[in-house]
Amino acid sequence: MLFFTQCFGAVLDLIHLRFQHYKAKRVFSAAGQLVCVVNPTHSLKYAPTRCAAAQTSTEQSILPPCHHHEAVHDPQLVPCTCPLFSCPWEGHLEVVVSHLRQTHRINILQGAEIVFLATDMHLPAPTDWIIMHSCLGHQFLLVLRKQEKYEGHPQFFATMMLIGTPTQADNFTYRLELNRNQRRLKWEATPRSVLECVDSVISDGDCLVLNTSLAQLFSDNGSLAIGIAITTSKVHNAEDEM
Amino acid sequence: MLFFTQCFGAVLDLIHLRFQHYKAKRVFSAAGQLVCVVNPTHSLKYAPTRCAAAQTSTEQSILPPCHHHEAVHDPQLVPCTCPLFSCPWEGHLEVVVSHLRQTHRINILQGAEIVFLATDMHLPAPTDWIIMHSCLGHQFLLVLRKQEKYEGHPQFFATMMLIGTPTQADNFTYRLELNRNQRRLKWEATPRSVLECVDSVISDGDCLVLNTSLAQLFSDNGSLAIGIAITTSKVHNAEDEM
Repeated sequence: MLFFTQCFGAVLDLIHLRFQHYKAKRVFSAAGQLVCVVNPTHSLKYAPTRCAAAQTSTEQSILPPCHHHEAVHDPQLVPCTCPLFSCPWEGHLEVVVSHLRQTHRINILQGAEIVFLATDMHLPAPTDWIIMHSCLGHQFLLVLRKQEKYEGHPQFFATMMLIGTPTQADNFTYRLELNRNQRRLKWEATPRSVLECVDSVISDGDCLVLNTSLAQLFSDNGSLAIGIAITTSKVHNAEDEM
Repeated sequence: MLFFTQCFGAVLDLIHLRFQHYKAKRVFSAAGQLVCVVNPTHSLKYAPTRCAAAQTSTEQSILPPCHHHEAVHDPQLVPCTCPLFSCPWEGHLEVVVSHLRQTHRINILQGAEIVFLATDMHLPAPTDWIIMHSCLGHQFLLVLRKQEKYEGHPQFFATMMLIGTPTQADNFTYRLELNRNQRRLKWEATPRSVLECVDSVISDGDCLVLNTSLAQLFSDNGSLAIGIAITTSKVHNAEDEM
């Protein structure tokens, strides 16, 4: 009996997922925007001091599986590029995109404006929704995280990071937009570099922050659609690169 | 000695307030916008069930000092129009503006776009910053509230309400904008009517919500500047008024 109940539940889930994808495509295709349905990544293992540990490199147990290194003073080495909670990976900026694609199967989307449709917003914290966005000759990482900064009160944090240096990041502005039921919420900022670590951006609260109640107001049937746009914030200064 | 210390503190406070006003005027006058410095109203008495109590009218101790009435079924009677925590006033829509001006000395500003400069954001919750905004032939109430929805974690809630009926409110859209340090946060929504009670709007979280960290990012020297704009959201339907 239990077996049949579970099978039936799994089939219902599949139908629900299919329906959501179809509905999102139907709604947003009219606006000519590319929609990407992003499924959550839930992790039971949460290490809030991961960044600090990686930066000081006192814990020799955290060794990068992809790029073995002795010195963490290398400025191009990314201590916690992979924003997934349970991944202790470290590596150079150039291989971050391939790590995210190959190890975590994170999609990469092209286009000036895309819609990020995060499903299953009701899942318990900590949960991440992640996508890569290729735009203006660079790759960006959008991270939506459900986290309990205060016990029992989960919040949603959304930020965009450049897979590049902080100097390169200063050339861009990203915009996240929620729009539903005659309500609109827009957040515009300069993206941070993945070298700065996504955990610290979220703990500083320097990103789009949503309470559960606000997230529910903007959600449709458990999915949250976030419009993303990236622009260049200033004339590209060739000297910055030198 | 204590007397002199306190006097010196008071003089410093006055100089600080004067300086803030001057600085705000200097910064925003360049943009041609009217700036209003809004001081906080702190109340020790907080009654979260005030709206419900007034609506059911079971508590006969809450009697309106301005308009004495027997029946609360009158749809034009506003149960908790006065958004100040400690005020149990009730009355008809027509006299709300004069009550707020006369009893609470709340300023009323004219203009399509104004800047609301809330001072002393560090004060403990519950604290309100309130202003009236006269625009497009109607009066609106902007309420910024610091409140601890979850104990020990104060948040800021900002909403705009029409001093009018819900049908009238549907004709407008309000926008609140924070802009500082290459970050911008915009909230757009249809204003609620004061008949709907500001407390319930805030407890529903259907407004601009700021964590303390985000409020600090947008604050300058303890003051938060909020740009306010009101537009008509649809062609005025004469039938709505009938």
